[in-house]
Amino acid sequence: MKTLAEAITGSIKKALNIPKEFVPLHEPCFSGNESKYLQECIDSTFVSSVGKFVNRFEKELAEYTGAKHVVLVVNGTSALHMSLLLVGVESGDEVLVPALTFVATANAVRYCGAVPHFVDSEERTLGIDPEALREYLQHSSEQRDGVCVNRSTGCPIRALIPVHIFGHPCDIDGLLAVAKDFNLNLIEDAAESLGSTYHGQHTGTFGLLGIISFNGNKTITTGGGGAILTDDPVLAKRVKHLTTTAKLSHRWEYKHDEVGYNFRMPNLNAALGCAQLEDLPELLASKRRLFRCYQEAFQDIPQVSLFEEPEGSRSNYWLQTLLLDDSVANQRDAILETTNSSGLMTRPIWKLLNKLAPFCDFPCAPVPVAESLESRIVNLPSSTGLV
Amino acid sequence: MKTLAEAITGSIKKALNIPKEFVPLHEPCFSGNESKYLQECIDSTFVSSVGKFVNRFEKELAEYTGAKHVVLVVNGTSALHMSLLLVGVESGDEVLVPALTFVATANAVRYCGAVPHFVDSEERTLGIDPEALREYLQHSSEQRDGVCVNRSTGCPIRALIPVHIFGHPCDIDGLLAVAKDFNLNLIEDAAESLGSTYHGQHTGTFGLLGIISFNGNKTITTGGGGAILTDDPVLAKRVKHLTTTAKLSHRWEYKHDEVGYNFRMPNLNAALGCAQLEDLPELLASKRRLFRCYQEAFQDIPQVSLFEEPEGSRSNYWLQTLLLDDSVANQRDAILETTNSSGLMTRPIWKLLNKLAPFCDFPCAPVPVAESLESRIVNLPSSTGLV
Repeated sequence: MKTLAEAITGSIKKALNIPKEFVPLHEPCFSGNESKYLQECIDSTFVSSVGKFVNRFEKELAEYTGAKHVVLVVNGTSALHMSLLLVGVESGDEVLVPALTFVATANAVRYCGAVPHFVDSEERTLGIDPEALREYLQHSSEQRDGVCVNRSTGCPIRALIPVHIFGHPCDIDGLLAVAKDFNLNLIEDAAESLGSTYHGQHTGTFGLLGIISFNGNKTITTGGGGAILTDDPVLAKRVKHLTTTAKLSHRWEYKHDEVGYNFRMPNLNAALGCAQLEDLPELLASKRRLFRCYQEAFQDIPQVSLFEEPEGSRSNYWLQTLLLDDSVANQRDAILETTNSSGLMTRPIWKLLNKLAPFCDFPCAPVPVAESLESRIVNLPSSTGLV
Repeated sequence: MKTLAEAITGSIKKALNIPKEFVPLHEPCFSGNESKYLQECIDSTFVSSVGKFVNRFEKELAEYTGAKHVVLVVNGTSALHMSLLLVGVESGDEVLVPALTFVATANAVRYCGAVPHFVDSEERTLGIDPEALREYLQHSSEQRDGVCVNRSTGCPIRALIPVHIFGHPCDIDGLLAVAKDFNLNLIEDAAESLGSTYHGQHTGTFGLLGIISFNGNKTITTGGGGAILTDDPVLAKRVKHLTTTAKLSHRWEYKHDEVGYNFRMPNLNAALGCAQLEDLPELLASKRRLFRCYQEAFQDIPQVSLFEEPEGSRSNYWLQTLLLDDSVANQRDAILETTNSSGLMTRPIWKLLNKLAPFCDFPCAPVPVAESLESRIVNLPSSTGLV
């Protein structure tokens, strides 16, 4: 009799129907103008922070997402860092982030000298649960002169960063309402959700600022890279200034009016992004096909289900997620062991951030759903072009 | 009768002997394997933070510079930031930096919550003057339990960052002696000096840590990029850990043991670096030829001189620097105006950092030499391949 881990390994192989010896969790797909645009960079000698591909990628991302302004930066983490500075997060502040997300979200808060304050997720979206958050803030915070203050620590809770986990849009309407009612700046971490929409509107465009990542493991990549989205022209101008060493425009003078950063995306990386963006519709279609194939392949294993996009949303299906029933959560590591030993790269979801050494002393709401999800998620090989 | 500005414009044109309408201050030169290696990245799909070019560029930079360990990062600024964290610079500390350098050196200090403490330069090297620094520290600091403390502020002075300005090695022996005598960690900012040696040893390898920049305006470029050099295996391991989100190695677990950064150089950018490094000897020879051409072209203008590598050093001549005599310092802006209007991109040296808004309240030694140099320097078009 087959174990659950063996059955799951078989189903993955059935879905993929490929004889590869090793299938990574996610690899990029370059089938368009990538080489051509890189060559144009070399020919023009513009490979660094100024160049036509930087401008073009910003313009095309704005058109694609519907954001009024896009500013390209070196990666998603620096995009979050800059966004937090832009909304005025300072040393000693607190920022609400999901316990269940990639570590970059909490790291960016620390770069500002602020403290991440962890909250729970909901199983329906994998993102922050707005109702649990509202209830938690009602008893653990109070408003002082229009600022949300943590009753226990006495520190201002300055911002809220929902994350669209694995590309699935969270309940952004619910979270915007909480942010409004509690005077929180909402920064949308859409690092994983390029191509995902919520009620037809692109993720990353609901908050005051939103961020996208183009790391090598994302749906499209620039090698390393990120973007900040905003509809606010003042914020857009300021983030461009801040990420280019805060240098004032002058024919020759080197005058900088604040502590700036060297976070602009190089033209070389933007060239790759322009080519990748052209292919995005096909890449998204491929990811949706893969979801259907996995769904079919797993239909005979009743203890597991494939995570499906939340109602009202259209997901990019960046990563394909297998959700184990409570009854078989104790077999998660056996499943990871068997699949990885078979050359199928699978991964758990991240360890809860509130349990990691650098964050375990910071404020944390009760996170029962995040704890349950942490124990029951196995991500499957998710590259485009697999089916 | 020609003005000085017109004479200088004529001399630049004579040196370059090219009919170009616009000559930039510094543009990169791609004449080797750049396209080939970029294509290899695309073919392999490894464009992000892991890949053969990252490993190769680190290995070849170590061989070239003689550093035991090299760790690639996204840019020179982040290399400085990480180096400061590695030597234990913390909020409230002070770090000695030249008043006369690019703003990134001081910004990196601020990222750690520390404060730049500005010191003077010497005309012989353009770098920090060791004798002036020693004298200044003798009366303005004291040792408390082996820590150098600023007598006025009461704050620890934790580190010293000499910069090899425009590629010219500073008096590193003199500065190492000061650092030893006053218990300062020496971090060598070799951002501009790849290819420059001091008594035959490569710059960036004298301090506990050294950094190099591969920004688009440098002798060789990766688009955006930087490197940290060190002979200390423990520091090298830690900086690699810190720049890759401080993730602990595990078959599948996402466990991070400290607040980490996303600062690793992408393989795509490292590919460009590998090709550029192959061409470095020829690029350096070209820069030396340009120096000789300028020197000859300016020999008939007695009020100006071309800055020449300090004795005992071999400079990469990254930028070609015209030094005006005191008597004509008041014509610096006219020279900048006339040359730039003639399509010859020239630039002054940076404004002194102690005068900029974000730094003007921080500790500053008397900086008479830096002030004089600031008023008398005009950098000339310096690209490789001009002659």
